[in-house]
Amino acid sequence: MPIITLTTDYGTQDGFVAQMQGVILGLSPESRLVNVTHEINPFAVMQAALVLKGISRYFPPGTIHCAVVDPGVGSDRRNIALRTGNQIFVGPDNGLFSLLLTEEIPWEAREIQNSEYIMPDPHPTFHGRDVFAPVAAHLSLGKAFESVGNMIQDPVRLPVSSPRISKEGVEGQVIHIDRFGNLTTNIDSRMLPNSIKTISIAHWTISRMSKYFNEVQAGEPVALMNSFGFLEIAVNRGNAAQDLGIGKGTRVSVQFAG
Amino acid sequence: MPIITLTTDYGTQDGFVAQMQGVILGLSPESRLVNVTHEINPFAVMQAALVLKGISRYFPPGTIHCAVVDPGVGSDRRNIALRTGNQIFVGPDNGLFSLLLTEEIPWEAREIQNSEYIMPDPHPTFHGRDVFAPVAAHLSLGKAFESVGNMIQDPVRLPVSSPRISKEGVEGQVIHIDRFGNLTTNIDSRMLPNSIKTISIAHWTISRMSKYFNEVQAGEPVALMNSFGFLEIAVNRGNAAQDLGIGKGTRVSVQFAG
Amino acid sequence: MPIITLTTDYGTQDGFVAQMQGVILGLSPESRLVNVTHEINPFAVMQAALVLKGISRYFPPGTIHCAVVDPGVGSDRRNIALRTGNQIFVGPDNGLFSLLLTEEIPWEAREIQNSEYIMPDPHPTFHGRDVFAPVAAHLSLGKAFESVGNMIQDPVRLPVSSPRISKEGVEGQVIHIDRFGNLTTNIDSRMLPNSIKTISIAHWTISRMSKYFNEVQAGEPVALMNSFGFLEIAVNRGNAAQDLGIGKGTRVSVQFAG
Repeated sequence: MPIITLTTDYGTQDGFVAQMQGVILGLSPESRLVNVTHEINPFAVMQAALVLKGISRYFPPGTIHCAVVDPGVGSDRRNIALRTGNQIFVGPDNGLFSLLLTEEIPWEAREIQNSEYIMPDPHPTFHGRDVFAPVAAHLSLGKAFESVGNMIQDPVRLPVSSPRISKEGVEGQVIHIDRFGNLTTNIDSRMLPNSIKTISIAHWTISRMSKYFNEVQAGEPVALMNSFGFLEIAVNRGNAAQDLGIGKGTRVSVQFAG
Repeated sequence: MPIITLTTDYGTQDGFVAQMQGVILGLSPESRLVNVTHEINPFAVMQAALVLKGISRYFPPGTIHCAVVDPGVGSDRRNIALRTGNQIFVGPDNGLFSLLLTEEIPWEAREIQNSEYIMPDPHPTFHGRDVFAPVAAHLSLGKAFESVGNMIQDPVRLPVSSPRISKEGVEGQVIHIDRFGNLTTNIDSRMLPNSIKTISIAHWTISRMSKYFNEVQAGEPVALMNSFGFLEIAVNRGNAAQDLGIGKGTRVSVQFAG
Repeated sequence: MPIITLTTDYGTQDGFVAQMQGVILGLSPESRLVNVTHEINPFAVMQAALVLKGISRYFPPGTIHCAVVDPGVGSDRRNIALRTGNQIFVGPDNGLFSLLLTEEIPWEAREIQNSEYIMPDPHPTFHGRDVFAPVAAHLSLGKAFESVGNMIQDPVRLPVSSPRISKEGVEGQVIHIDRFGNLTTNIDSRMLPNSIKTISIAHWTISRMSKYFNEVQAGEPVALMNSFGFLEIAVNRGNAAQDLGIGKGTRVSVQFAG
């Protein structure tokens, strides 16, 4: 039973996602559907890119991820399929897969061209239902990845802000705020030495790395490596974004010890 | 594996939908459950009717749709099952299925009377769990549609506002606002000639029909036929309801060319 | 096909729940996943406890419920599995299962100690994915409940406010507000005689028990036994919490008849 996951900014209230699920189950009745999220902020391609990066290593080999955050639907942006490691992704070529195009894992991208895999006369504003859902369904039936269309070398990559690293420390920024108000930065674990002096964000200074939230008192800020693999600033039993008054893009600097 | 879809105004936070799913899986362990939406506004029967119309043609033959938006639960309103085309719908008889009772597709409605298909002593405020879920489950096991109860000819139909059509143009209104703030009107594609002069809504005038959002600049209003088959007013990469300050019921008029 | 349900305060926007689902499907490909809710308010252990109590009797024997509302994740709070009746629950030992530890149904609790059932090096802030999801998956494969770890006699119980009962009446409080704004109290059906005189809440007095909402006019308050088995105050076709201006903890008193 092949797994197909769905990630969109459609919300659920209008039934758009259900239409996609109906199409998939019609073509691939044995497939298992997993709804990742449909609560991506409208048009927030980068937010979806981070979610996709987060989930991709936790699904079994052969999982097909259908992802649609697609402000340019109907225009001449390409529709693509991407294979990286043992996972396949299907969606618009607008940077949604930026964080999966890494040097560590070989990838192959193809433009969706095979008209047998898409609905006849796809609706110009609903490629989720008429293009990406049926392509995912066909791939789940075992159709060859290569049969989707021609290989492309230049899938769109969104610019990702990189932290500035020096001998004294590293300076990055908040790139994601999760449901709990926890602040994910773009500083990953490889950028941090074992021993740090301070972490500064807005008017707050944190003097050590923790492993879990409860190492500090309730209401106090805490810094740790989160499950995405990035430095995170949280407030124990609080909401860091609200409690510290911090939004996406806020600067975070880590000063290394001695 | 029969498919059962669920559409409610229950939200998910209280576990009500999960109780329905538990009941269904207890009776029909092989059934496939698809959550269409549980975010219908409380008691918004017409909103659910539009969602049901939208999804019905995208599910495989034999799909059973269990829909519960039910402000009159426990009173003497009837419980019904409806077969239209190759789809079955189960829910309260309060107009929820209004948009499926068309002349184009033959339908048959029955009152739910067979006590073998419902829970003993159903809770007076939770027919979703104790009536509609088990009826859907029994039908998914292959029980005859006719065995539900007696045929009825007069399922409740909510009044649907019809656009006013003349030689010069058509005047309708906004009937649905989707997650993106896009405005669905009650003007369908058959009411529009190939060539139009203007589309007016609030203080805005749009001079042509587009096929997709990106045909206009970001922030500009755009008119197109949406995936429900209705005229839609949107704002490219924006939120028309917010940006234009428009709510449900707002008048939309289309002036035909020449 | 074993059933695994998921109840968390993770929301869906960040993909955390999907990571759990990926882990479960990797270990237990045949399992059926049911999302109960991920909209528990952050850290609201008691809210989740009520939802779990509500759903537990509606799922088939052998269902495994994985529940994670876990502000103390990573600290020394225990991870536990609980068997009660024919259902199994897996989650943190922080009171989440308080309402399932009853005298009526025998239960057995065990600390999760078997390292074969958890991910190597579990992330200190994400036991949902690295501990509870894989334990649920292993149990769904038929591993013995006893193999999880040692029996414990003292799972954490949150204090539950009990109503004050006298000959004249019973005084309780609002413990839950559902999606419709309906007010669930802690007064259960066994505390009420057949005949009552009045029910008072805030400035409102209700003079009889109803069976369903529509027994009173739209906009009027109504008292009934809800599907959790508790006294509920609602407003027909309204939102009692908003319309009556009432929050959790508000006192409710029932005066018995003569």
